[in-house]
Amino acid sequence: MRQSKLFTKTTKDAPKEEEAKNAQLLIRAGFINKEMAGVYSYLPLGLKVVRKIENIIRKEMNETLEASEIFMPALHPLENYEKTGRENIDVLFRTKLATGRSLVLGQSHEEVVVPLIKNHLFSYRDLPIYVYQIQNKFRNELRAKSGILRGREFSMKDLYSFHSDEGDLEEYYEKSKKAYKNIFKEVGIGEETFITFADGGTFSKYSHEFQTVTGAGEDIIYICESCRLAVNDEIIDESPKCPECGTKKEDLRKEKSIEVGNIFKLKRRFSDPFDLRYTDENGHEKPVHMGCYGIGVGRLMGAVLEVNSDENGMIWPESIAPFKFHLIAIGEKAEKKAAEIYDKMEEDILYDDRNVGVGEKFADADLIGMPYRVVISEKTMENDSVEIRKRWSKEEKLVKIDKLQSHV
Amino acid sequence: MRQSKLFTKTTKDAPKEEEAKNAQLLIRAGFINKEMAGVYSYLPLGLKVVRKIENIIRKEMNETLEASEIFMPALHPLENYEKTGRENIDVLFRTKLATGRSLVLGQSHEEVVVPLIKNHLFSYRDLPIYVYQIQNKFRNELRAKSGILRGREFSMKDLYSFHSDEGDLEEYYEKSKKAYKNIFKEVGIGEETFITFADGGTFSKYSHEFQTVTGAGEDIIYICESCRLAVNDEIIDESPKCPECGTKKEDLRKEKSIEVGNIFKLKRRFSDPFDLRYTDENGHEKPVHMGCYGIGVGRLMGAVLEVNSDENGMIWPESIAPFKFHLIAIGEKAEKKAAEIYDKMEEDILYDDRNVGVGEKFADADLIGMPYRVVISEKTMENDSVEIRKRWSKEEKLVKIDKLQSHV
Repeated sequence: MRQSKLFTKTTKDAPKEEEAKNAQLLIRAGFINKEMAGVYSYLPLGLKVVRKIENIIRKEMNETLEASEIFMPALHPLENYEKTGRENIDVLFRTKLATGRSLVLGQSHEEVVVPLIKNHLFSYRDLPIYVYQIQNKFRNELRAKSGILRGREFSMKDLYSFHSDEGDLEEYYEKSKKAYKNIFKEVGIGEETFITFADGGTFSKYSHEFQTVTGAGEDIIYICESCRLAVNDEIIDESPKCPECGTKKEDLRKEKSIEVGNIFKLKRRFSDPFDLRYTDENGHEKPVHMGCYGIGVGRLMGAVLEVNSDENGMIWPESIAPFKFHLIAIGEKAEKKAAEIYDKMEEDILYDDRNVGVGEKFADADLIGMPYRVVISEKTMENDSVEIRKRWSKEEKLVKIDKLQSHV
Repeated sequence: MRQSKLFTKTTKDAPKEEEAKNAQLLIRAGFINKEMAGVYSYLPLGLKVVRKIENIIRKEMNETLEASEIFMPALHPLENYEKTGRENIDVLFRTKLATGRSLVLGQSHEEVVVPLIKNHLFSYRDLPIYVYQIQNKFRNELRAKSGILRGREFSMKDLYSFHSDEGDLEEYYEKSKKAYKNIFKEVGIGEETFITFADGGTFSKYSHEFQTVTGAGEDIIYICESCRLAVNDEIIDESPKCPECGTKKEDLRKEKSIEVGNIFKLKRRFSDPFDLRYTDENGHEKPVHMGCYGIGVGRLMGAVLEVNSDENGMIWPESIAPFKFHLIAIGEKAEKKAAEIYDKMEEDILYDDRNVGVGEKFADADLIGMPYRVVISEKTMENDSVEIRKRWSKEEKLVKIDKLQSHV
């Protein structure tokens, strides 16, 4: 993309009331626009990152977890929440139909997906069923100060699994951990992300969270390095050791972290209130066991950014960067050559063809944070080369122009 | 896709309270699930159609109209509507933040896109700007009886253009007509869709709608066949003739129709309330002129269906069908061959490998409405062939198995 075609502008200063580093950087770089606390618009470069994250998630959902994508609405009947006893949870946004019927905005989708599946599930032959969606959630947080880490409106992937018995749920639950690990590795926070034992509510001993270590996190976890596991602060007193190797609380590493995903054995918590049952091989009615598996898309983007940024700006991993290369030309002759390079590699390049000084272009390249900055000048052209600088290591080298495309 | 992997079931009867043909068929075929009047979930086959329509729209937005995709939220501050004087329009869903601040759910996005662009628009050099999104809209309709033709929550593509003067707006507005025509042609309702003169509000003489002729439509239009234009009933008395050739109202064809798109010269209607201005070449502040351009994605899907269906079910145009072929095998030997064909063409085929009778498979193939039904049996295998039946013409012919892939 030619940067002159980008309607967004970079700015030196973040809005005063924005406290979170992730949102400050994203706003300054023109990736998002703040509408109110916890509510953001995604602008062209930001949306490109979102779509890449979504597609990484989608691939694991479709291939590893064999789930089918669906799309459920945000408007939910309040009656459904009365059935599950969640009609008074405090994060619900409430609204009303013109006819007077009470509605809430979906803060999660158990109350919609269970009645939906009930229309299609009859016999043991229909099980298991795995469905997921990528949809906006609405949570009426009293405070929303963490930028895109905790939004009032935010995109989430939520998968729901339906099983004939607990054993089958258990097996799929284990498989989901693998899919989740693949996702966090692929978006570039595999090293910093730990599977974490957390509260399982009234119906499971534990749930599992995926927690990414960052100073911006609102959670506290105790990490066992050797097992690559952690325990959430909320259960550390009840279970003051690594659940795998038994290392005691005192010897675990305490860190701030952000929850980027969670998986939960719902069992019959939501299927029973809607009387979701199936007929087994012998004609008997049996209860359905459920699991749910969430990843916040915006939150994941924010977590990647909290982990990957420096004083000059953002540093995008190649897998989710809007573009791989940020191309800058110095001097008229180089501009002509840059345009040629750009024409051949449009998809991979953000070409800064703006009529501004080189200093401003360099500063913006650091702020916007494409993985590789590519500079072409009369000097580099003497060697038929460009100078490539890795955004994260600041390592520079000359690369022949015809090798650029194959460069990693 | 193997049909046995599809969790959705077809049903003989539509829900009693569902009056609209489009929703009846989509529910029976397992494409959508009804959550409440005007609110639907999209299931795997339905979502595939939605995504294909979205991508057809996206291509025209990106390429023909050179617009940038963004994504704006559904939660809007009520204050913004007070600025434009739309705080009391009756389709607004209202809600409140936990802090007490009044919000509405986006029924359109002028009140969000204008302040957003104001953060990035300063000089004449920044104009024109074209942005669009595909996002859910919320409209608190008192009645919602038209299935996915008129939802309370529905997906819409909305494009907003920003110009330095009316002439530039005019030019882009004309270009948008071409892009819209391309879209309606590509999704299979080009013949039935007429550009229609409609009310332009207080600030334009006319707006333009794209109206698709169908008995399920809620609008009435007067068509001039030779000019391929129409006049909306709402302005026919004021302008009782074809605006192009002057043919009188009495000689125009009166039809029911559904509005599948509209384009509107907003001019300064929304830019002025937010004081959206730019500095011209001479350093003077000037007002910004806007246009907006909408297409309802679900509504377009419903319109395609109202035009393309018969007593047995749906008939999907190839461009937006979930799959091109619906493959059915008769007899064990044929099943083995069918599986081989499927393995080579997974992306294009819905393979009915369910353990049900052939009669049920044929009825479901008609209901689900893939463009081509492919039957393989011992008889067709004698000629190394399959029998292909066009869903819309019911024309059948034998085609060699190795020619199947290249078949249109």
